[in-house]
Amino acid sequence: MSTPPRTGLWLIGARGSVATTTITGAAALAAKLAPPTGLVTETPPFAGASLPPLDSLVFGGHDTASCPLPKRAEALAEAGVVPHGLPSALHAELAAADAAIRPSAPAPASDRRDEDALIDTYAHDITDFTRTHGLARTVVVNVASTEPHPGTPEEPLPPSSLYAAAALRAGCPYVNFTPSTGLHHPRLAEAARTAGVPYAGRDGKTGQTLLRSVLAPMFAQRALAVRAWSGSNLLGGGDGAALAEPAAAAAKNAGKERVLADNLGALPEGEVHIDDVPALGDWKTAWDHIAFDGFLGSRMILQTIWQGCDSALAAPLVLDLARLLARADEQRLTGPVEGLGFYFKDPDSGPADLHGQWRALLDLAGRLTPASGGAA
Amino acid sequence: MSTPPRTGLWLIGARGSVATTTITGAAALAAKLAPPTGLVTETPPFAGASLPPLDSLVFGGHDTASCPLPKRAEALAEAGVVPHGLPSALHAELAAADAAIRPSAPAPASDRRDEDALIDTYAHDITDFTRTHGLARTVVVNVASTEPHPGTPEEPLPPSSLYAAAALRAGCPYVNFTPSTGLHHPRLAEAARTAGVPYAGRDGKTGQTLLRSVLAPMFAQRALAVRAWSGSNLLGGGDGAALAEPAAAAAKNAGKERVLADNLGALPEGEVHIDDVPALGDWKTAWDHIAFDGFLGSRMILQTIWQGCDSALAAPLVLDLARLLARADEQRLTGPVEGLGFYFKDPDSGPADLHGQWRALLDLAGRLTPASGGAA
Amino acid sequence: MSTPPRTGLWLIGARGSVATTTITGAAALAAKLAPPTGLVTETPPFAGASLPPLDSLVFGGHDTASCPLPKRAEALAEAGVVPHGLPSALHAELAAADAAIRPSAPAPASDRRDEDALIDTYAHDITDFTRTHGLARTVVVNVASTEPHPGTPEEPLPPSSLYAAAALRAGCPYVNFTPSTGLHHPRLAEAARTAGVPYAGRDGKTGQTLLRSVLAPMFAQRALAVRAWSGSNLLGGGDGAALAEPAAAAAKNAGKERVLADNLGALPEGEVHIDDVPALGDWKTAWDHIAFDGFLGSRMILQTIWQGCDSALAAPLVLDLARLLARADEQRLTGPVEGLGFYFKDPDSGPADLHGQWRALLDLAGRLTPASGGAA
Amino acid sequence: MSTPPRTGLWLIGARGSVATTTITGAAALAAKLAPPTGLVTETPPFAGASLPPLDSLVFGGHDTASCPLPKRAEALAEAGVVPHGLPSALHAELAAADAAIRPSAPAPASDRRDEDALIDTYAHDITDFTRTHGLARTVVVNVASTEPHPGTPEEPLPPSSLYAAAALRAGCPYVNFTPSTGLHHPRLAEAARTAGVPYAGRDGKTGQTLLRSVLAPMFAQRALAVRAWSGSNLLGGGDGAALAEPAAAAAKNAGKERVLADNLGALPEGEVHIDDVPALGDWKTAWDHIAFDGFLGSRMILQTIWQGCDSALAAPLVLDLARLLARADEQRLTGPVEGLGFYFKDPDSGPADLHGQWRALLDLAGRLTPASGGAA
Repeated sequence: MSTPPRTGLWLIGARGSVATTTITGAAALAAKLAPPTGLVTETPPFAGASLPPLDSLVFGGHDTASCPLPKRAEALAEAGVVPHGLPSALHAELAAADAAIRPSAPAPASDRRDEDALIDTYAHDITDFTRTHGLARTVVVNVASTEPHPGTPEEPLPPSSLYAAAALRAGCPYVNFTPSTGLHHPRLAEAARTAGVPYAGRDGKTGQTLLRSVLAPMFAQRALAVRAWSGSNLLGGGDGAALAEPAAAAAKNAGKERVLADNLGALPEGEVHIDDVPALGDWKTAWDHIAFDGFLGSRMILQTIWQGCDSALAAPLVLDLARLLARADEQRLTGPVEGLGFYFKDPDSGPADLHGQWRALLDLAGRLTPASGGAA
Repeated sequence: MSTPPRTGLWLIGARGSVATTTITGAAALAAKLAPPTGLVTETPPFAGASLPPLDSLVFGGHDTASCPLPKRAEALAEAGVVPHGLPSALHAELAAADAAIRPSAPAPASDRRDEDALIDTYAHDITDFTRTHGLARTVVVNVASTEPHPGTPEEPLPPSSLYAAAALRAGCPYVNFTPSTGLHHPRLAEAARTAGVPYAGRDGKTGQTLLRSVLAPMFAQRALAVRAWSGSNLLGGGDGAALAEPAAAAAKNAGKERVLADNLGALPEGEVHIDDVPALGDWKTAWDHIAFDGFLGSRMILQTIWQGCDSALAAPLVLDLARLLARADEQRLTGPVEGLGFYFKDPDSGPADLHGQWRALLDLAGRLTPASGGAA
Repeated sequence: MSTPPRTGLWLIGARGSVATTTITGAAALAAKLAPPTGLVTETPPFAGASLPPLDSLVFGGHDTASCPLPKRAEALAEAGVVPHGLPSALHAELAAADAAIRPSAPAPASDRRDEDALIDTYAHDITDFTRTHGLARTVVVNVASTEPHPGTPEEPLPPSSLYAAAALRAGCPYVNFTPSTGLHHPRLAEAARTAGVPYAGRDGKTGQTLLRSVLAPMFAQRALAVRAWSGSNLLGGGDGAALAEPAAAAAKNAGKERVLADNLGALPEGEVHIDDVPALGDWKTAWDHIAFDGFLGSRMILQTIWQGCDSALAAPLVLDLARLLARADEQRLTGPVEGLGFYFKDPDSGPADLHGQWRALLDLAGRLTPASGGAA
Repeated sequence: MSTPPRTGLWLIGARGSVATTTITGAAALAAKLAPPTGLVTETPPFAGASLPPLDSLVFGGHDTASCPLPKRAEALAEAGVVPHGLPSALHAELAAADAAIRPSAPAPASDRRDEDALIDTYAHDITDFTRTHGLARTVVVNVASTEPHPGTPEEPLPPSSLYAAAALRAGCPYVNFTPSTGLHHPRLAEAARTAGVPYAGRDGKTGQTLLRSVLAPMFAQRALAVRAWSGSNLLGGGDGAALAEPAAAAAKNAGKERVLADNLGALPEGEVHIDDVPALGDWKTAWDHIAFDGFLGSRMILQTIWQGCDSALAAPLVLDLARLLARADEQRLTGPVEGLGFYFKDPDSGPADLHGQWRALLDLAGRLTPASGGAA
């Protein structure tokens, strides 16, 4: 029997914390060095969906940074993000992925001709990766630092949109795991519509918003009146610095607010802060304070404190999405894939509550399952 | 046009905080003095279910205490549970309900003959109430303090079971809103099966367990491995004292643990404490600490702090349940009513996650809706 | 025996929440309707310091608002800040204080001649109050909403400085309980030096900073390395809106940061947010997250959540300060009074830790005690 | 110039987490591999106190366990308690300390003759250690798991008291860092009085009680009325299991309550729970909920959440105490050493607030300082 076709996972921001954790984790799971905690696609409902096996994934990507992946993985082990010992045990896999990383352009495109040339270069990098490794297909996933919100459609495309355009041009499924613009740029609308590839986004739901997507429906179902929902996020790492920029925070907070408005019927009072606290490294703390009224106007409060490792929360979702989009592409699905709101703060469509999103995801698993039955 | 038939609500523990809040609140809503916050049966999905209107409810009950309801309501206003001004504005309604309260037996039954006589007395009290007020039917709801867990089936019936038996004997729908035994006594099984009335229970889900029923599914759906779920509850009022009794706490905690085991597939490490803190009065604080593993074994923590008023959380659910059971009885449903797990820590059947329970409740609303359509 | 001389308390912002709570509380204590909880000057160490008795205080002040004090007090009772029943029981006292309130100028002074005229008017109001009521002296306390930070010394004096200048001109002791400029204006320096009255400030320490002034010394004494100290404040009322203004928040945060820098030797990472959440009314929630290193670099975290009523925290400190300044004036102390750092976020001098500040306050009590013993 | 005399540190429970962290840390500090975070005796006020240098400490002890220290240290590195890399870098030092550990008796003494023989054996082990290594003196520190509270003076001495008696018999300063009985046994009172050695105890103050000793004075100084102080502790490791035993918890909680009663003047409502949560390992979470009344009876709440590593909190205090007791012995101080309440939940004497205890500790540092001045 022949070996199964392999699938490429091309990461924009391939030497960042999320990418490094994703690549290290995939290699650890393939080598049976860790259980698949956090991977939804390894749970029973997905057993029959013919997703690409974890040991068939091949990694590459773009990045401006040059620190090699094995060294980045060691740093993450120091920080407690990945287990000690794993980076050295997986040195070969990390080095192989590192060799497949192509440099990002150091400066943004300054006019439309430059843009087109850059998109071409990026698309060629991806196609070259697919061909060199003999891959069935390659899924492009954006896990780079959040960009400031773009000004106007007339300005040059932001980097995230250049990479998204490159994915389309290379005929690759595309996932935007960040709040950056990516495919959501008016100048990419036509290409997205006609490219014939599946895509998904945006802004992975890893902490505070995940919680909000189960708590807000609870208040709504119990007819409790939420009066104010306030939040503070403390995080270090590159993400903390990027998101402390007011413009980037605005992009992120739009998603956070949408989950409240959609589930509660109206946006309650309250703000969300994102603070850069370098001392916390990859660890993120999110505090939420929810003031609500109960029967006869009684005043009540729920507070939540979420302490998690951002990269470890994101990485399994990146693997899930890459596998689901690879299979969707194999099934010839195109355009925005329905049923992936479970993964995103700001999904294209579908229900706003996590349970509804989970049901929609199970439906998608069913649609991806081969007709002959599989895990019926 | 004739006035609609009225429905009785007979409360066991009719002068307790939950009952007083329930009666005050129903009167306030009937008089349009407060919005129906917390009342699920006043939300759009229930508009067509032909539930008894709030202004058609008539209150009575049993209690050992003699402090009159208007005075109890004043005390609750002092404590901030109900708005100041409401008790005096609703004095007539509270006094009328108080006049319909019958004394509970001061001492428990000591042998089976005494038991039978007591059940008869209680059943007669209820029937008399129904007849005197010309009610279409009366729903009996247990909101008395939690009893210690009963020893053996050979011992005398605990008070909660005497009242449950009286409800059956009087042909009334019955709701056990507490973790006490109620209908769940082997010696009542046969009567429950043959009484031809609908019933529901047990142990209203008002705080920590409500939260757990949305958070536990989140961890399961995201394939995150919950390692320990610990909780502490601080509450005053009579409930704090009753639940600080180890035996009563055990009864309560069984329900709290079940929601975790059912949603997570296994019971994680961790204990639940219930402390009597008289200084907190009717206000309850519940702290939960959830240690979970993410990708590659990363250690993460979620903590929740719920600060609520127990009586204000319970009262609208009591009204919901009474209305739903009255309508179920009108529709000739008998036995345990399917679809009420939304309200209980320890339901007889149905899904364990709140969202699933909410769907089941909406299904019930559909079954209660008159065939002709009817959302007037 | 003659009645003791009475003391005036002139409040800038006399119809605000803090002032209304102060006046209501002083009247309640004088009438023995409440215990002196929160009043440091009613504890044993101050028994001999010959402070003006609580029932000898007479209230007046300036305000732009016109809603009468009895009505303001009713609103605070509705909001749960003062006990129900108190405003009506103390109606006479509240109405008397209300009658002594003079209007503030509706618009700020536009040039220095206007300034001088306004200061004169305000000084005359205060002097008139003192004379009319036959008071031994009047202490002026600023409890008005926080002003934005002033631009330059060349700009017109901000309102808080006009009132401070009026206090000096009227020969009255002065307390700045807010972070506004008050006496801290270069153009008032000379007058403050020569006025011959005692003064104190600034920015009352009522919540988060109070906590920080005991927690920061703990870390320092234990040689634990604080790496980041982050905070979020949620509050409604007028104060929430005023402090959510970036400029006003900057004034407030300067005090909050100083307590950390002074106690820890250096300012750790971390920001402080102040959010206006109208739904919370006078209730304030402050969350602090402190990341610190222990032995061998182990990472640890302390979090605190403070839920208090801002006006109820401030009011007893206002009474304390007025009594202490009145006695200091009687003792002919002039200039900044040493030993009041216990009360302020941003004191003029003295230790930065609460315990050291408390010792300094006890020293002041000793200095205020009559040589012969007084209340032995 | 001659080498300075060396000092022994004999740990009861020498292979436990606290002891292993202490030994690893002392070696790391001697080798300049870590900064002295958490070591109070390395701060400026102690520079002149002639304490034994960190690189002059020699370790030994008793334990029933046989897992060698280098392996225990590796396990602590895995658990994130000590930095990765340290155990291997310090293998020689850990192995040397391990070689100096003598076995504890497997079973407790059954009668007084057995007791005396055991005490003799233990004392001989200690003396032998001192002599073999040519030490100036050896300080004995109990860091073994907490014992259940002893029944009556007639019962056999608990193990902690046998070791305490052995320390006295060997003429060694003694520190009880645990809530176990140790020297606090009536049958050891006479020996303690006449042994001519300094001693200190008991129950190291490392988390929740440390916080309480700064927060309780704050409430007292501000005249705020604490109504209820409730706490929950979650911890794994051996300590979690030991303290979850009701009898051991009772011993520990006595100390926790004393700090409240002593600082507040009366013990407020509220309980303390200690839960064994193995999943947390050496990491401890303590939640405190403090309900207090402010001005006019307003209800306010402070909550604290302390997340620390128990061994990393304890280890530097163990080093501090050993150094201070060694110097006290050198200065011929005998009996309970005044000024060490800073370190203990249940000190023999002195102030109950942390700041007062810190002042007392600085006084002790002064008393230990050579008259000529001497901070060499």
